[in-house]
Amino acid sequence: MAAAARLAVRARPQSNPNPGVGAILVKDGAVIGRGWTQAGGRPHAEAMALSLAGGDARGATLYVTLEPCAHRSDRGPACSDLVASAGLAALVYAVRDPDTRTAGQGARRIAEAGTEVRHVPCSAAADSLEGYLMRSWHGRPHVTLKLAMSLDGCTALASGESQWITGEAARAHVHSRRAMADAILVGGGTWRSDHPRLDVRLPGLEGRSPARYLLTRGEAPDGVQAIGSPEGISGLTDAQYLYVEGGARTAAAFLAADRVDTLHLYRAPIILGDGARSVADSGLTDLASAHDRWTLTDRRQLGSDRFEAYRRIRHERD
Amino acid sequence: MAAAARLAVRARPQSNPNPGVGAILVKDGAVIGRGWTQAGGRPHAEAMALSLAGGDARGATLYVTLEPCAHRSDRGPACSDLVASAGLAALVYAVRDPDTRTAGQGARRIAEAGTEVRHVPCSAAADSLEGYLMRSWHGRPHVTLKLAMSLDGCTALASGESQWITGEAARAHVHSRRAMADAILVGGGTWRSDHPRLDVRLPGLEGRSPARYLLTRGEAPDGVQAIGSPEGISGLTDAQYLYVEGGARTAAAFLAADRVDTLHLYRAPIILGDGARSVADSGLTDLASAHDRWTLTDRRQLGSDRFEAYRRIRHERD
Repeated sequence: MAAAARLAVRARPQSNPNPGVGAILVKDGAVIGRGWTQAGGRPHAEAMALSLAGGDARGATLYVTLEPCAHRSDRGPACSDLVASAGLAALVYAVRDPDTRTAGQGARRIAEAGTEVRHVPCSAAADSLEGYLMRSWHGRPHVTLKLAMSLDGCTALASGESQWITGEAARAHVHSRRAMADAILVGGGTWRSDHPRLDVRLPGLEGRSPARYLLTRGEAPDGVQAIGSPEGISGLTDAQYLYVEGGARTAAAFLAADRVDTLHLYRAPIILGDGARSVADSGLTDLASAHDRWTLTDRRQLGSDRFEAYRRIRHERD
Repeated sequence: MAAAARLAVRARPQSNPNPGVGAILVKDGAVIGRGWTQAGGRPHAEAMALSLAGGDARGATLYVTLEPCAHRSDRGPACSDLVASAGLAALVYAVRDPDTRTAGQGARRIAEAGTEVRHVPCSAAADSLEGYLMRSWHGRPHVTLKLAMSLDGCTALASGESQWITGEAARAHVHSRRAMADAILVGGGTWRSDHPRLDVRLPGLEGRSPARYLLTRGEAPDGVQAIGSPEGISGLTDAQYLYVEGGARTAAAFLAADRVDTLHLYRAPIILGDGARSVADSGLTDLASAHDRWTLTDRRQLGSDRFEAYRRIRHERD
């Protein structure tokens, strides 16, 4: 299932508006089909994996990150119908589809056709669907906040000089993350001072630049859309993944509104001292409430810089 | 030699005023003696390793992190005499002793006695002697600056609340680092606001609390000595290792004076936003000069906190 989740990541973000799903078809210990949601959302992962295997699918086991869909559409058959008629020995899926048109009906239809169906939760599969699940459960895109800073948490000298804090490898990594987002957002101050292009400048990925948004109460310039507050991202109905690049006041506003799910920190081995802060006042009044909110999920060296990813810990009560 | 360097670390800081040296005696592929400088500086590492092996030392090879001393003292014989008369097949040492009473004479005396002598530089050995070498070359102790902060580089809330940013494991690690220092220093502001005890509160290491210093132009309270500026640490003639615990203005002053050799960062997975800074203005005016000064040498997880050590990159021109 972890392998299927890795395939699912390939679908991000082009599968939008559909969830990015991964599927692996296994028979007699060998992989006979693999699939992931294709650009624009079709074909679905299950259809791709089954069509690769053809008649060999009979008697095989299909691992899929999300419950196969139950709703028929003009754009293709329901995956649950496809799976039900493939003569599989078993279907294993990791995440129940919260879409009310499927929500258990996909699994039921396949079971009723005589295929063994097992629901095996898998955190890697849930992670690969976090944008889709955030949309379904909370009506907003999944938000990654990126901060590039010195060891002492500054994003620029007091003079404003900020090019460059981090090195080439870190900046290329940022562009690769932009390519994983449907939408990108900066604050008005960053827009005015840095004139960021916010596009993807990696060879072969130039077409993957996300839609651009500005956090502002005013008008947005041409080619950019305005969002008045972090809560306003609920209006980005066609985005599963939003990438927020700062600056400090925008970071603080998103943190204060609890609209950050993942933090991406890029830290250069420099000390600036008294430079511009990475995060402005986010309304925190006691230390205890700052704890138990973030957990480290990834870290790596990028040239001379350190990359760390933190995930927002969300308890049931959140 | 790396193993000898690890033994040398056991001598830190109790070997003071002598260098903390490690020695390993090898014969026919087996270790027959090990030694490190004992508390107060005697016996030396070579004497300990040779006395463990006794007559078996004949024909063995001695690996020692520092050139054996050539100066006779009331407290014991010169190691070079001991080594020269032990009938060794070979002596391998990593760092030439800059002490003018030895400085090549130790190695020469052993070679003249018919023992093969090889000088094989080893970075681990040099690292284990960095306090002694800093004293010898630059007339000051080696300085470690410790900073405990949030992910965005704050050391306290804007209200001043700072207990606690980091967790128990990180705080115990700090105490273990204090036990590795001869002297500890904080700034006047930290002294007045936090009333730090600056001692070692680890079971069995209570006796290892370093001498306490305060960076202040005024008077120091009882039990603490005053130092007027970072340059003033040259006066700490009996310290090889100084541990500086902040606060922000003290950190900035030591950085601005280029009196920091190692940075120890403890980072809690919290975001404070607009809190107290970890480093105050250190006079930096351009980004380019901030780069190429620090390189990551250690990193580890301490409970939910991250520890990172950075070393000051010193080029010949520095």
